[in-house]
Amino acid sequence: MGDLHWETKLSATSENGIRIRGYDLVQLIGTVPFPSVLYLLFTGELPAPNVAKLIDAIMVASIDHGAGAPSALAARTAASGGASLGSAAAAGLLTLGKYHGAAVQDAMEAIQKVAELANREGSGAEALARSADAVVAEWRQADRRLSGFGHRQHKRQDPRLARLFALAREAKVSGNYLESARALEDALKRSTGKELPINIDGATAAILCEIGFPASLSNALFMVARITGILAHANEEIQEMPPMRRIDPVDHGYAGPADRVLPIS
Amino acid sequence: MGDLHWETKLSATSENGIRIRGYDLVQLIGTVPFPSVLYLLFTGELPAPNVAKLIDAIMVASIDHGAGAPSALAARTAASGGASLGSAAAAGLLTLGKYHGAAVQDAMEAIQKVAELANREGSGAEALARSADAVVAEWRQADRRLSGFGHRQHKRQDPRLARLFALAREAKVSGNYLESARALEDALKRSTGKELPINIDGATAAILCEIGFPASLSNALFMVARITGILAHANEEIQEMPPMRRIDPVDHGYAGPADRVLPIS
Amino acid sequence: MGDLHWETKLSATSENGIRIRGYDLVQLIGTVPFPSVLYLLFTGELPAPNVAKLIDAIMVASIDHGAGAPSALAARTAASGGASLGSAAAAGLLTLGKYHGAAVQDAMEAIQKVAELANREGSGAEALARSADAVVAEWRQADRRLSGFGHRQHKRQDPRLARLFALAREAKVSGNYLESARALEDALKRSTGKELPINIDGATAAILCEIGFPASLSNALFMVARITGILAHANEEIQEMPPMRRIDPVDHGYAGPADRVLPIS
Amino acid sequence: MGDLHWETKLSATSENGIRIRGYDLVQLIGTVPFPSVLYLLFTGELPAPNVAKLIDAIMVASIDHGAGAPSALAARTAASGGASLGSAAAAGLLTLGKYHGAAVQDAMEAIQKVAELANREGSGAEALARSADAVVAEWRQADRRLSGFGHRQHKRQDPRLARLFALAREAKVSGNYLESARALEDALKRSTGKELPINIDGATAAILCEIGFPASLSNALFMVARITGILAHANEEIQEMPPMRRIDPVDHGYAGPADRVLPIS
Repeated sequence: MGDLHWETKLSATSENGIRIRGYDLVQLIGTVPFPSVLYLLFTGELPAPNVAKLIDAIMVASIDHGAGAPSALAARTAASGGASLGSAAAAGLLTLGKYHGAAVQDAMEAIQKVAELANREGSGAEALARSADAVVAEWRQADRRLSGFGHRQHKRQDPRLARLFALAREAKVSGNYLESARALEDALKRSTGKELPINIDGATAAILCEIGFPASLSNALFMVARITGILAHANEEIQEMPPMRRIDPVDHGYAGPADRVLPIS
Repeated sequence: MGDLHWETKLSATSENGIRIRGYDLVQLIGTVPFPSVLYLLFTGELPAPNVAKLIDAIMVASIDHGAGAPSALAARTAASGGASLGSAAAAGLLTLGKYHGAAVQDAMEAIQKVAELANREGSGAEALARSADAVVAEWRQADRRLSGFGHRQHKRQDPRLARLFALAREAKVSGNYLESARALEDALKRSTGKELPINIDGATAAILCEIGFPASLSNALFMVARITGILAHANEEIQEMPPMRRIDPVDHGYAGPADRVLPIS
Repeated sequence: MGDLHWETKLSATSENGIRIRGYDLVQLIGTVPFPSVLYLLFTGELPAPNVAKLIDAIMVASIDHGAGAPSALAARTAASGGASLGSAAAAGLLTLGKYHGAAVQDAMEAIQKVAELANREGSGAEALARSADAVVAEWRQADRRLSGFGHRQHKRQDPRLARLFALAREAKVSGNYLESARALEDALKRSTGKELPINIDGATAAILCEIGFPASLSNALFMVARITGILAHANEEIQEMPPMRRIDPVDHGYAGPADRVLPIS
Repeated sequence: MGDLHWETKLSATSENGIRIRGYDLVQLIGTVPFPSVLYLLFTGELPAPNVAKLIDAIMVASIDHGAGAPSALAARTAASGGASLGSAAAAGLLTLGKYHGAAVQDAMEAIQKVAELANREGSGAEALARSADAVVAEWRQADRRLSGFGHRQHKRQDPRLARLFALAREAKVSGNYLESARALEDALKRSTGKELPINIDGATAAILCEIGFPASLSNALFMVARITGILAHANEEIQEMPPMRRIDPVDHGYAGPADRVLPIS
């Protein structure tokens, strides 16, 4: 061991194998589903079954948001200039900033603050409302954007939201943080006069608070999910479109399979 | 519709919802696992159950390869200079080039060529060996690297390999392409005199050939899986390490949980 | 020196100073202009005065091509999602692919081939025309795009071209390669029936052939120049535009200073 | 003009030409040096001759810092995995974060604050020292890093610094801000007990304050300069080194031309 020796807590490789947080990767393959191994790598432990289901659900909810998402457009633009699939995806990934996807961590901070304040103030709907008002006021005073609320396209409620919250209730992890997110939604309306419903980032944030997911990796969860959609868009651009085309961000349609329902399993 | 109107076959969004290849995303959340929704987005159809299991297994096999992988080192180096989590991950993603991860597509091409030639020549081990020799010779003449064989660290057999091939047999998708990959391994030994065993890229390539996965998206499958490990390494660097440190690519150890086995479920 | 010791021919740093290809950086600062230090770093030697002038001219010619260039649009899109200035610029840089900027190296190859063939065939306009026809035919047979000719916007002649070629003549480096580029332009017209005039990549390529600039770094010269425009666009997006806006690639105008001429110096 | 119409103040292109901030690009080529056209694009006006010289000097000072700089290492690591030249350079660019190069803007803020406070407090060395102490205290209280001071390698004074400051004096732009930077250096020593001399970022920041360069583009100036070194390192890695090598961040040497002095011109 030299002067520069350093250590990781994530994984180890040797000629005989690879270990992820102490588990033999070979034993994980085909036994533990991918989102649960992601959870293991990110948090240090395998998820309980109800948590595993929620992580999978959050990742599916975030996998793609159509060809008009800035990240998809940036990846297509790079591909159109001649970028390889991986380089185009990197351009898309760089687009996932504080206004687009990488907002989960900020939303977790606000939701946790509301829950903490409410907890200190005693329980009940009123304490929650007061706490949410206080957080909204604090964020406004500091001129900070309150991430996780409002969406350019889904003016009412993001359709993915009700589904995620229902799954959280089913998984019995629905508690203070989901209520805090709702309280923030109401407080924002009182403060701004506008409907700024919880969006996918906010819903993800609330559920991740409930399950104790590390805030510093919450945006990473979104990134793994969304890079999938980004790669699909970049690939379609490379395979199907002429190079150097002018990519209109609005005037595009869908030409894939017609609406269909899942086979009952 | 203006002059620049264009169409995608991947997904559609509206105020009421998001559809992935015709399916309502809300219906997919919590019902279809993430790797299967990835498969749907990439290929246009949901996978059969045996295929779903293999996609999940391939993704778990590729999720991380320790702190010494070039992509992990690049992400850590960027983070050490002050990059955000997403930007550090992009630096890691850009490192997944033809020598490191993004080799699945090239390996699929060679394996398919062997299977095709062998098919034309009649069946049997001899036809297969001759076909593999022909492909090795063709690649060498064109001065092309034969991707999917040999690994810097796993001099013998990559430990992930036997597991993936066993799962393929279980899933009943073990056929010509797995044999072709083995035949290439043997042909490489005859041609070079060196052991260049099938590596994770090669094994993934053979299985993706068996299930008819689109070659143009085979590297993308690896990228979604590996960006997970890259993000975990970047996050550990940001959270735990001093900025601007000299990151030794070899002199590092593992300080996480001790070896442990999966609980029997 | 350990097992991993390696060496660079580019530069050396110590507590006392930095040396670029053997020269003290401190001595270069304020003495040798930036484009000439770039040339030193890239090629190993300081440029002769006439070459220095051409390198500077090529860099100015490539510095920006308006807000509709794919690289500017990708950088703006990333910035609009919340990317930092550097990350947005990286997204733009990744867009400089084989169809957009990173075409100089390919063009150099074709131009050198024409000059070589013509040289072997004896001199004169006819030998040149025959050589150019042969190269066009070879590229078409291999289904290779002949980079450096034609531009989406400048259907006739790129306005930067005549200026660069005039400077090359002034600098007395106008010779076989410039003629070869012209011969390729004519051969392309004979072969395709279309006007595909030399573009900025092609003109840059021809001049770089004349001065013996390393082909492997020719795209790099363009990248240093153009990252300047990319950064300016990303910065304007961050400073002046609302986040998450739909960035139309065509419907944009110019609102800066009116047309003006350089003061006579 | 549609709903999405937008405007830029940077540049305009048409079939007949390209204009940069109102000037015909063709007229700039070969007439105005590259660093001055960069200044025009970034600030809106051509620089005065003394400012032009300083911009060029700052860019030369920042062009490269050897093979051990994190950005050079990240670019080499990406290239070693198989990245293209542009993608490797993007990985390097992403490494220019708040601890490495992208610190000029932060340093400008601190220096401006010292100058402002000192100005309010009346002139003289004492007012300056008190102001610098106040800024150091404010930054420490807010747990903010004071960028622009101290260097991993140049423990004493960065050798590029004296040269830049001498050129600033020659250019007659040496005033309050250079003094403020020196005052911060002294205040840091009083506060921490350690020598944290002005580094290249801090020196650049002080001079950019003197010439009124826009702070939001100060890191961009560094990025254009340094991407040159990054590209040179990436290219050397691609051309000369074996793929997938372990890149030691410390155990490397210089094998280029021996020390030499500039020819007298």
